[in-house]
Amino acid sequence: MEPPAPQRRVTIVDVARHAQVSTTAVSKVLRNAYGASPEMRAKVRRAIDELGYRPLAAARGLRGQTYTIGVMLPDIRNPFFPEILDGITGHLADTDYQVFLGPGGCNDEQAEARVTDAMIDRGMDGIILIAPVSSRARLEHIASAVPAVVVGRHGHSAVYDTVTDDDMAGASLVVGHLAGLGHRRIAHIEHRETDATRRAEMPNAQRADGYRRAMQAIGLAEEIDVVSTSYTQQGGYEGARQLLARPRRPTAVFAGADIVAMGVLEAVAEAGLSVPGDISVAGYDNTTFASFGPISLTSVDQAGHDIGGNAARLLLERIADRQKTSVQVKLSPMLVPRRTTAAPQA
Amino acid sequence: MEPPAPQRRVTIVDVARHAQVSTTAVSKVLRNAYGASPEMRAKVRRAIDELGYRPLAAARGLRGQTYTIGVMLPDIRNPFFPEILDGITGHLADTDYQVFLGPGGCNDEQAEARVTDAMIDRGMDGIILIAPVSSRARLEHIASAVPAVVVGRHGHSAVYDTVTDDDMAGASLVVGHLAGLGHRRIAHIEHRETDATRRAEMPNAQRADGYRRAMQAIGLAEEIDVVSTSYTQQGGYEGARQLLARPRRPTAVFAGADIVAMGVLEAVAEAGLSVPGDISVAGYDNTTFASFGPISLTSVDQAGHDIGGNAARLLLERIADRQKTSVQVKLSPMLVPRRTTAAPQA
Repeated sequence: MEPPAPQRRVTIVDVARHAQVSTTAVSKVLRNAYGASPEMRAKVRRAIDELGYRPLAAARGLRGQTYTIGVMLPDIRNPFFPEILDGITGHLADTDYQVFLGPGGCNDEQAEARVTDAMIDRGMDGIILIAPVSSRARLEHIASAVPAVVVGRHGHSAVYDTVTDDDMAGASLVVGHLAGLGHRRIAHIEHRETDATRRAEMPNAQRADGYRRAMQAIGLAEEIDVVSTSYTQQGGYEGARQLLARPRRPTAVFAGADIVAMGVLEAVAEAGLSVPGDISVAGYDNTTFASFGPISLTSVDQAGHDIGGNAARLLLERIADRQKTSVQVKLSPMLVPRRTTAAPQA
Repeated sequence: MEPPAPQRRVTIVDVARHAQVSTTAVSKVLRNAYGASPEMRAKVRRAIDELGYRPLAAARGLRGQTYTIGVMLPDIRNPFFPEILDGITGHLADTDYQVFLGPGGCNDEQAEARVTDAMIDRGMDGIILIAPVSSRARLEHIASAVPAVVVGRHGHSAVYDTVTDDDMAGASLVVGHLAGLGHRRIAHIEHRETDATRRAEMPNAQRADGYRRAMQAIGLAEEIDVVSTSYTQQGGYEGARQLLARPRRPTAVFAGADIVAMGVLEAVAEAGLSVPGDISVAGYDNTTFASFGPISLTSVDQAGHDIGGNAARLLLERIADRQKTSVQVKLSPMLVPRRTTAAPQA
């Protein structure tokens, strides 16, 4: 059949006719609902492309949806976040949802409030918050206004879903690896947590606790040495400078994130020491930086892609049913040993 | 005076009364227009905060503005883009505009069309396109629908503004630096340009042309050696593998972008060669990666922060006056020599 005359807006009915399927079928494909076969999807997609149908304009009038999902990113420089983002966009690739990233301030509650308010004001259908620092009350306030999934934050809420990795287990993997190589003076650089009530929920705090517990469990309680800075390159640099100035220098440093390890490597090189000869360094996140050959950083893979995919899936479920029971997904991390860790010098 | 009763939406009139200024003054502050003094700004800001005024909701009804600016980012992994983004958000920090990033596909015209359509459909007030690969016609189509500024793309258009660095000059700085150290066999890794008509506008093509011209100008025309891959880490890795396999290996590699240089460093290390002992490597963009101590990559600083700031400024001007004359801003790059370049071995 012929495409409709160009002066009239293309509707879902036109798409259904053109694809020779029912309007229900078109709607299913648009909503990415169950029960649309791959063939059906292909047919409808083709009709949409051929007619230049724009589901958004139509949907606005019908259901008030904007087919927009907001992702709040705390720090666009942290090389771990693109992995999560790929998982999100990958999961949404076959839907009509468009992802927009809101750059949050780095660990700044006010900046987070501004971005999330902006997303709600603009009628976004759902929000994924990556590693937010806002209070629990604030997160629940957001989730009461719009379907929300929180990534990288532990704790249960009745109104939003969470996706995290098991940070406690990840920290324990690093300590076990370093101790297995023969290290005893294993130090940790953590992200300073200022809010006591939030502490139990933050991945950084869980990694620090995991480090402490693992050190205790293997009889190294007396060697516990934690420096509090921030999960930034600068934080790693400053933390390492403190550790290198200790009278008894640690033989291994577990940095709470790869970006922190970058700063550690910088400080170690500046001090004229070698890695892993003089000091072993491990990170967390297994970013492309860690796998970059000339660096080759031992790190913990927390499967950012799976985290993002799960977050997107849960968000679509919550958009479809705002009253659904909340879900907490916790993924198991994996240690990836590389060249920055080795046995300590005798 | 007392804040208005909470059940009624706060309006610009309430803000004006609370701040004891005129509504015109409030409007000026909101639009970031000329003629609002710092004191006036502070007063109005305070009133807005105290009353919890949300300009967006009000503006929607009044002028159809959404106070939203879309930034299309081609590749969230490229460490140069956060610099531009900082410049954009920095310039907009005192306004009510909210920036949302649309992740474009990496160098994929269809993905760019999808993101920009989505931004237009959602009523964004303006769009900044970073290093788009879309055709000129497509860019002008976008600019006819919404005020637009294009970053990292040469060429003049009557309907949009552009901000670039002088890529030709930047390439020439690198060649001059390497030749000055005594190199003659200086190779270049470029981003393959498939579209002949677009070629003249692309920064990657300008860098490659700048390299060729500079080599000719200093009498090294016969040593010109360009490998075409892509501006990705993988592209750099593959390009370097080709160059290292040459019967007469180059003594220096000018990678078209820092992310390309990352791949080069990886391939060089894998081949058991040292930098700069066996081969010098230079990048372009002066990212945090380049300044990272253990890497210390010679690179070209194209002032990403200024590029972003200029783009935001031009966009606000164009939003205020859609008929304004188009402007092309070209910024001068600077060479930042570091430890990856040195004189060739005798």
